[in-house]
Amino acid sequence: MKYALAMLLLAPGFTGNDPRFTPEGAVIRPTDYREWIFLTSGLGMSYGMRMPDTGHPDFDNVFVEPAAYKAFVATGKWPDKTMFILEVRSSLSHGSINKAGHFQSDILAIEAEVKDETRFKEKWAYVDFSHGGTLHDTAKPFDGDSACNVCHSKNAAVENTFVQFYPTLLEVAKVKHTLNAGYNANQ
Amino acid sequence: MKYALAMLLLAPGFTGNDPRFTPEGAVIRPTDYREWIFLTSGLGMSYGMRMPDTGHPDFDNVFVEPAAYKAFVATGKWPDKTMFILEVRSSLSHGSINKAGHFQSDILAIEAEVKDETRFKEKWAYVDFSHGGTLHDTAKPFDGDSACNVCHSKNAAVENTFVQFYPTLLEVAKVKHTLNAGYNANQ
Repeated sequence: MKYALAMLLLAPGFTGNDPRFTPEGAVIRPTDYREWIFLTSGLGMSYGMRMPDTGHPDFDNVFVEPAAYKAFVATGKWPDKTMFILEVRSSLSHGSINKAGHFQSDILAIEAEVKDETRFKEKWAYVDFSHGGTLHDTAKPFDGDSACNVCHSKNAAVENTFVQFYPTLLEVAKVKHTLNAGYNANQ
Repeated sequence: MKYALAMLLLAPGFTGNDPRFTPEGAVIRPTDYREWIFLTSGLGMSYGMRMPDTGHPDFDNVFVEPAAYKAFVATGKWPDKTMFILEVRSSLSHGSINKAGHFQSDILAIEAEVKDETRFKEKWAYVDFSHGGTLHDTAKPFDGDSACNVCHSKNAAVENTFVQFYPTLLEVAKVKHTLNAGYNANQ
């Protein structure tokens, strides 16, 4: 695998590009996010906005664009144009040799969080590429007073991002002293 | 983030290097695997070799070295020198705004699967960098008749790898017709 560098240079995934928008201001869904940096996966997480556990909990996989990740590791802050993807997948318990617990299956939803300090008054915006139960190529950001905006701005550990659930980045934020002033690490 | 390419070139993580060994044949633990390609995460998965569910299930995060991933996407096969990392993390249910389900916490174990067609008679070998409850910088591969070898060679979907649990790669293997002849997709 000595050709790794050449492959990275040629790879369509690692463009490090800014988020892309349509002329109407909708966010264009990135198709290469599975080659971004993985931050965490949760199962059946609920904070009051989702349905209670039905016995078929969903996995939430969180990815961030690689250049933004590098910047966060260096500074503990998110650069302008940072983009996160939340990929929701259904879970299965019995399949192949697995007898218990849960493993990941089909995609149920793809959502995104985007930082754009000039485009959005609130700096951060949220989109759901899977609204209405269909996967869309573009999605309009929610209004600035959406439930997403309110919850992220109120409860997130670093800027508007839930770094408290990203174990490796939480350590970075502690070292760089970039936890939000209002964030209570003991809550 | 126009400097993304330069950052990738300089980034210590994306070396695309082959697995490294000590003169005694132990595998050297990669420290940059969180910047590799994420394949899946399971919670509390059990296939008879682990303890039953205690109410505190563990997350299993699987990563593969980026150049090997690119090769698999192109061919449906793993190139020589492919390396996987299995990162086991404890789970928590209550913290910050989360009220249900499970999110990831501390590292409990780091294990690896390595393909080296000349070094290992069985081509694939398995190591546990956390044997004895401590994280080690190096670990000797298990013998070729270990439980890991036996189970992977008997039950894996592609070569010795559990692609049946990696949703995106399972689709690649189906398209490329590289599922093992003995693998029963309906089991």
